[in-house]
Parts: sequence; C-alpha cells; structure tokens
Amino acid sequence: MSDTPARYRTKRRVEFRDTDAAGIVHFSAFFPIMESVEHEFLRSIGVVVMPSHDSPDSLTWPRVSAACEYLGPARFEDILDISLIVERVGTSSVHYRYEIDCETKPVAIGRISVVCCQLGSGGKLTKKPVPDSIRSALLAND
Amino acid sequence: MSDTPARYRTKRRVEFRDTDAAGIVHFSAFFPIMESVEHEFLRSIGVVVMPSHDSPDSLTWPRVSAACEYLGPARFEDILDISLIVERVGTSSVHYRYEIDCETKPVAIGRISVVCCQLGSGGKLTKKPVPDSIRSALLAND
Amino acid sequence: MSDTPARYRTKRRVEFRDTDAAGIVHFSAFFPIMESVEHEFLRSIGVVVMPSHDSPDSLTWPRVSAACEYLGPARFEDILDISLIVERVGTSSVHYRYEIDCETKPVAIGRISVVCCQLGSGGKLTKKPVPDSIRSALLAND
Amino acid sequence: MSDTPARYRTKRRVEFRDTDAAGIVHFSAFFPIMESVEHEFLRSIGVVVMPSHDSPDSLTWPRVSAACEYLGPARFEDILDISLIVERVGTSSVHYRYEIDCETKPVAIGRISVVCCQLGSGGKLTKKPVPDSIRSALLAND
Repeated sequence: MSDTPARYRTKRRVEFRDTDAAGIVHFSAFFPIMESVEHEFLRSIGVVVMPSHDSPDSLTWPRVSAACEYLGPARFEDILDISLIVERVGTSSVHYRYEIDCETKPVAIGRISVVCCQLGSGGKLTKKPVPDSIRSALLAND
Repeated sequence: MSDTPARYRTKRRVEFRDTDAAGIVHFSAFFPIMESVEHEFLRSIGVVVMPSHDSPDSLTWPRVSAACEYLGPARFEDILDISLIVERVGTSSVHYRYEIDCETKPVAIGRISVVCCQLGSGGKLTKKPVPDSIRSALLAND
Repeated sequence: MSDTPARYRTKRRVEFRDTDAAGIVHFSAFFPIMESVEHEFLRSIGVVVMPSHDSPDSLTWPRVSAACEYLGPARFEDILDISLIVERVGTSSVHYRYEIDCETKPVAIGRISVVCCQLGSGGKLTKKPVPDSIRSALLAND
Repeated sequence: MSDTPARYRTKRRVEFRDTDAAGIVHFSAFFPIMESVEHEFLRSIGVVVMPSHDSPDSLTWPRVSAACEYLGPARFEDILDISLIVERVGTSSVHYRYEIDCETKPVAIGRISVVCCQLGSGGKLTKKPVPDSIRSALLAND
C-alpha cells in the first residue's frame, strides 16, 4: 500500500430531474450523486452497503458531514467524471473526497464523512472501529 | 353525511428544487406534493399516518396507483391551491383526487389510490378492511 | 415495420435516495426513472432531447400525463429491468408504456404521454405534428 | 444595527419523501430545506429571489458552497425548528448558517455561501457587489 490515497473513478450522466429553473444541476443534486458513487465503490471492494436489521454484527455508515464547493455549471445530459478519493480512515470514521469534472472542466469538489456503526435491533446504532479487513480494502490502490 | 365527497383544501408554495431546466415544476414533483397533502389531511382527521412497527394493529396505506394530468405550467414561488377529494372508499381502498390550481388557472389533476394494510413484524403488510371509524372520518364533510 | 410496438430495454439500479422510511422505493421515484429511460431511448434513436432555445425549429416534448401502478416493492440496490414500449404515436402525441420488473417479478407499470412542441423564444411552446422521420424512428423495431 | 448577526426563524415539517430506508431524513434532503428557508427569508426582507431574464440589472445568488453536519436524526412528521443566521456579508458574497433542531435537540448545522451576480441575456452571470440596500436588509435584526 503506497501513500497515494485510493481513487475510484466512474461516470454519471446528468438526468433532467437533477436540473433546476436556472438551467443547471441543482446544488443539492450532487449529494445523492456522491452517495451513489460511494455505494458503487463499496460494492466494488466487497463491502455490504445496506445491512439487514436481522443479521448480527451488521455495519452501517451514517453520514456525519457533507460539503460541496461549486466550481462550474453542469447541465442536462452532461457526463460527469467523478473520482472518489479515500482521504483518511480514522478509528471509526471514513473521509471521502469527490472530484467532479465535465469534459475536463471542474464542476464540483465534495466531501462526505461517515462513521462506522453497528446496526442493532430497532435500528439502534453503536459506533465501532472500522474492521481491519474493510480498512485495508478502503485504502488499497487499484 | 351528504353525497358530496369530502374536500380538503390547502396550499403549497413551489420551491426551487421542484423546478427543472424547462423553467417549470418537474412533472414528478407533483407526486410528493400530493402525498404531503394526503398526510396533512389524514392528520387533520386524526388518522395516524406512519405507524410504529412495534404497535399491534398498526394500519398503513401503501400506494397502488398514482396518476397526474398536466394542464398548465407552475413556476418557482407560485402558490398552488390544492383540493384533495376523497372520491371513493372501497372495502380496503381509498381513492383520492387532487385538483391543483394556480391563481384560478388549472395546473394539474392527480389521482392516488391507496390500500389499507396492517403492518406486521418485519414490515409485512396484510390487506385489511378500512375500519368504520376511519371510513367515516374520510368521508365526512367539514 | 411490424405491428409489434417498439420496445427499448434497459436497467437501472435503485439508489438509496430513491427509498423512503417504509424501506422501499418511494412511489414518486419511478417517474424520474421512467423519464431517464425515455431520454436514453430518444438518444438511442438520434432524437435530440433538450433543444437549445436559440435553434429554430427546436422540438421538445412536454408531458401531458403520467401514471404508475405499483405491483410489488423494490428495494435499495435492486436492479430494475425496464422496458419502454411506444404504445402509440398520434398526430402530435407519443404514448409510452413502461414495464418495470425486478428479478422477473413485476414491480410497476407506468404510462407517460408527451406532446410534440416547437420551442420558441421566451420558452413559448407551440404544438406541432410529430415529424415523419421521428415517427419512423419511434416506431421502428430493433 | 447591533453586532448580533441577523437571525430568521421558521419551521418545516419532515415530509415522507425526505426520508430514506434508514428511517430518517436523508442527508441530502436538508439542502433543499435550507434553500427554501433562505428564499423565505429573502422574501421576508423584500429581496426578489428569482429575477426575470428580461429585466435589466436582475440579481441572482448562485451557490458557491454548501455544507452540513449531522448531529441527530430527524424522522417523518417531525417539526424542524430552523434558524437562518447571516454570518457575514462580503463584497459580493453572503454566508448563511443554519441551525436545525427538533424538540430542542440539535439535528443539523448547515452553511451555504452564495455570490451576488447580475443575470444577463442567455443566462450569463457577472459577479457584482451586494447593493447597499440589500446589505442593510440582510444584516438588520428584527
């Protein structure tokens, strides 16, 4: 494992529902897009995204913060090039950065931090250290 | 109780997120608006909208169909005048019609049909007759 | 061209934002999904989805009605198999039907009707006959 | 005008579409809520939110950044108490902070920064100083 943070690259097309009356992607629409990329990344490294309430020792990743800077507009049908970078894995937290470009022009830079929790009965959440196997998978470079 | 169906009137302001790049309310945005009016109506007649999974005999109302005709555009900040009409209460079903106007011009006519279900453990749904007390409340005219 | 209506098949994964507190896809979320499939279909047959306000003779397709029947639940990460069927092309209208399945179980059947309009300056819309070239493309079977 | 930043207080009810399959408000749903509060605030101080493309000297306020920390869950039908605080008005920028509580428990703290722009023909945006009259209105305490 090198010092270079892991980077997962993918694409998303801007759908019409992502736009608003200013003719561009609504600022809030980048957040579900970033989350869908996180989920795609987790599936790609074999981490279960949505545990069953029934299975013991189920891990889930509630968000503790989310942020986005808007650098340029994106429009309907644009293809967004999205890089997810695992910036840091703390004891219980994972910090993702997102670089979102369109035709090499920067559109947005986002950040989402999540915390590793065990999902108990009744939806009760208990903070847990990130298991070593998941930590390694999150930090591995392709 | 007369033969006139019950009608519940309320208003909603068009928020910016409801719009799209055509400059008008996105066609899909009317559906959450209609649902929020249904929930406001149910609260107004004392029907619990979202039962707890824990409480026995909890009733919930999954949607079986939804439809909308678009008669004219609505734009950001428009005030929508919305009438919910209880068109029919079947054995287990409730059929709502929605008339959505803006400054007396028709914008949309919607229909949502729901079915009365008991919510069991694990989210299991069992179709139930609409209880008489709820049937009366749904059909009462103010 | 046979009598069989044109059918365009594609897939969509259920994203977390599509779900609601009942644990399933929110009924309204199927409408943007259906629209995104329509747009993918139109791109596949070479029809421009979102014309520029500047280009003369730009055609756009505002929705006149949308409907959906819900046949079974879909959940986060489910892969939806979606068929778009061009049910009918009228003088100025196009009527789409959508069959949405998940692992061969029916989830929803939708209908969206659009009308062919010329987009003039200031966003003014004028109803137009569907051009023959587009009519042929809409009705062609792969 | 004192040194206390202006604070605008309002409420929002959590709608069902705001929730997700974890049973709580989806993290992205706070952003349109914050924006709708900003717009309500601007209307309350007489600032036009959405200028016409036709009117000269129209001002609009594109977002340059948005962020949210999540402090506790909010659920369907919860009433959110929301305070918008004008943290700072720069030469061309306005920085809002949002404090979102539910029954006195903190739910989220958000930040949105916008920049004052003139809306020209074709949707072209040019950064402008915040006019003095708007600056005073933004900073005034009720």
